[in-house]
Amino acid sequence: MPQPLEFWVGYGSTYSYLSVMRIASSARRWGVPLVWKPFNIRSLMIEKGLPTGPFIPRPEKLAYMWRDLERRAQRRGLPYSKPTQYPVDSQATVRVALLAAQEGWCGEFSQRVFHMNFVESRPIGAPGNLEAALHDLGREAAATIRKAHEPDIEAALAAQTRTAIELGIFGAPTFRVGDELFWGDDRLEDALEWARNCQLAPSDQA
Amino acid sequence: MPQPLEFWVGYGSTYSYLSVMRIASSARRWGVPLVWKPFNIRSLMIEKGLPTGPFIPRPEKLAYMWRDLERRAQRRGLPYSKPTQYPVDSQATVRVALLAAQEGWCGEFSQRVFHMNFVESRPIGAPGNLEAALHDLGREAAATIRKAHEPDIEAALAAQTRTAIELGIFGAPTFRVGDELFWGDDRLEDALEWARNCQLAPSDQA
Repeated sequence: MPQPLEFWVGYGSTYSYLSVMRIASSARRWGVPLVWKPFNIRSLMIEKGLPTGPFIPRPEKLAYMWRDLERRAQRRGLPYSKPTQYPVDSQATVRVALLAAQEGWCGEFSQRVFHMNFVESRPIGAPGNLEAALHDLGREAAATIRKAHEPDIEAALAAQTRTAIELGIFGAPTFRVGDELFWGDDRLEDALEWARNCQLAPSDQA
Repeated sequence: MPQPLEFWVGYGSTYSYLSVMRIASSARRWGVPLVWKPFNIRSLMIEKGLPTGPFIPRPEKLAYMWRDLERRAQRRGLPYSKPTQYPVDSQATVRVALLAAQEGWCGEFSQRVFHMNFVESRPIGAPGNLEAALHDLGREAAATIRKAHEPDIEAALAAQTRTAIELGIFGAPTFRVGDELFWGDDRLEDALEWARNCQLAPSDQA
């Protein structure tokens, strides 16, 4: 039996776009159970001394990230348009994501908000976009957002973020299988193979 | 005609091991001309405000790197034994590498010193190891090291490192094809494909 794969996803993370759009179908194809683990990437980054994330303090790395993300989206066959805003304010979105994970609709929610951010130039955190995403999914926006800001969701999000830090997670996307961490969209295939086989077989190279 | 691929390699860089051991055969298989570009990764990191490199200030990222490197070596079918020393002092080694690149033997030299560091527990920079590597390659160690410390090599290394920084390189290994940068061993296949086709085709996913 394959082990479950935990998907530690941050809604302010650019590379998470590549994983969010393909992880459900990939996990299904591999027969690997998928567990969505939204966490507060901003809280983690503040704790690690990077309050604006890993790229803003390093302009050449930021420039590279945008070009790399564009090329990798092409590689994955995903549409891509450079976001009009970065960093984004993902605080309300991650709260809804945690509620969605509890209720079983985190995958479709995440795909919607990441598609808006990375294809439709409708940034995560910009006024009205979270409401629009929920509406598109057939959900009552105001009530959902209100529920996502209740104390139990706040507490669950804080606890999940604390768990991420204690597990040694330092960025997103991160995949966890048993005790193994895999960081970055380019490690998703390794994580899926580990979930199936508890090891990595030597594979064809370029 | 494929474009040439420049391999910007740092001798204090851990992930460079994975690329050094496979890049010559991969480039040959793709019909891509390979140009070795040794540069002073320590000078670059100092200029970027990371004098001990990217991992030492972030212990959880350091721990992840060791585990990831071990798994990726397994994936690549490469032997691996965790180095006994990190960071290493690569200053003399990169000077010899630059001389070797000028003279056309940088590939075999790099494979030898990285194999010693990542398989034989003989760290880059530890006394006697550079001499031993040169001896293993049938070269006169003392004369080669002396030549590698002459002013023209010092100047060429400083210029090459300045060029790296001006190109927007921020770490190693980096591959450059035309104006495109690809950072990290996990982008070598993308870089080779770009050298052949000037684009990335959508590829099979997990």
